[in-house]
Amino acid sequence: MKVIFFDIDDTLLGTSNFAKVAREAAINMMVENGLPLSHSEAYNLLQEIIVEKGSNYNKHFNLLTERVYGKENPMLIALGMVSYHNVKFALLKPFAKTLDILIYLKSKGYRLAVISNGRTIKQWEKLVRLNLHNFFDEVITSEEVSIEKPNKGIFEESLKRMNTKAENSIMVGNKFDVDVLGGLNAGMDGILVNSNLSEDKLNEIRKNYPEVIIIDNISQLNEYL
Amino acid sequence: MKVIFFDIDDTLLGTSNFAKVAREAAINMMVENGLPLSHSEAYNLLQEIIVEKGSNYNKHFNLLTERVYGKENPMLIALGMVSYHNVKFALLKPFAKTLDILIYLKSKGYRLAVISNGRTIKQWEKLVRLNLHNFFDEVITSEEVSIEKPNKGIFEESLKRMNTKAENSIMVGNKFDVDVLGGLNAGMDGILVNSNLSEDKLNEIRKNYPEVIIIDNISQLNEYL
Repeated sequence: MKVIFFDIDDTLLGTSNFAKVAREAAINMMVENGLPLSHSEAYNLLQEIIVEKGSNYNKHFNLLTERVYGKENPMLIALGMVSYHNVKFALLKPFAKTLDILIYLKSKGYRLAVISNGRTIKQWEKLVRLNLHNFFDEVITSEEVSIEKPNKGIFEESLKRMNTKAENSIMVGNKFDVDVLGGLNAGMDGILVNSNLSEDKLNEIRKNYPEVIIIDNISQLNEYL
Repeated sequence: MKVIFFDIDDTLLGTSNFAKVAREAAINMMVENGLPLSHSEAYNLLQEIIVEKGSNYNKHFNLLTERVYGKENPMLIALGMVSYHNVKFALLKPFAKTLDILIYLKSKGYRLAVISNGRTIKQWEKLVRLNLHNFFDEVITSEEVSIEKPNKGIFEESLKRMNTKAENSIMVGNKFDVDVLGGLNAGMDGILVNSNLSEDKLNEIRKNYPEVIIIDNISQLNEYL
């Protein structure tokens, strides 16, 4: 029985989009309540902080107010966080075809698992909020195994957890270098979905890695699996 | 202009109640999804952990699964957390008369502030979600000043922040020893609301601290202020 490993963010569900809208909402609220910057200044500063600290850092708004005022402003931090979370949870949805395709893959007898760079509970929270968690036998996160994709170790640990071999497994993800190349290097097959890469870059991949399947959308998985 | 300092939890809004319901919901979800305990066993274990670690510890569910399985179960932790937060935010409301009485006190010219034992952002989050934050000039938390009620220091710092003196201020809270006695020791007046103390204990307070006003409900504040 083949195993399909999925990335989560922007593979099963669109997080880049809601993160942007949620950050805009948070900045709106903070500026309306007295943060002495224009909307775009504040948004740009937040983006800088996210680039600097990474998106898994959980004190972006604390740092934003600290940079503006010289110390934290708890009211604005709370206003930002509440707005961010309200919008995020309102918008958190799987891609339109994610559920269909997961049901299809289960009906074909595949075993499914997740390999995600991110915090364990945060990634589980997304799966649980969307009721996707029952499809997956294992969820392997970089936090849990202390190794990030594309390093081989996280893929090897995932194969072990699923009690399978690389030649019987496929890695599906939206990031070529992180998900697909990482999987290939561990001996898996690779499928690139929803990548947003330029046509030039895609052609380069087609030339150098002809074994990689490239699809626009997770709904096309049933053409290959 | 007199300053009135309020405690938050179970003074402005009822948190004991929603915490219980939210915990029950979380335990339900965890047991339904495989936690191998009865509902009451799991609930009691959670209560033990809360007593042991305090209610501000943010890994109660992690520890619960660790104690049951010998290691964390991220799916059950996420299911517990999501259920807890959904129920908590659905039930988070000020007491029926809180808003009326805050408007009344502002109309009488009082300045208002909050003194709370708890985490700064978590306490602000409650005020912000309920749109109560605009009533208060300052929110002083034990996390921020590293001193908890009933210690004098947090009251003194609060007086300083509000630029006022103890004799011009009143502390309003639901815990006699923590809020009211703490305020009295710092030289403030004290009002005990919503205390849930036995009639015997209340009579003892009436005898030993005749200057303390005791009311059942925050809505009765307008009889004294």
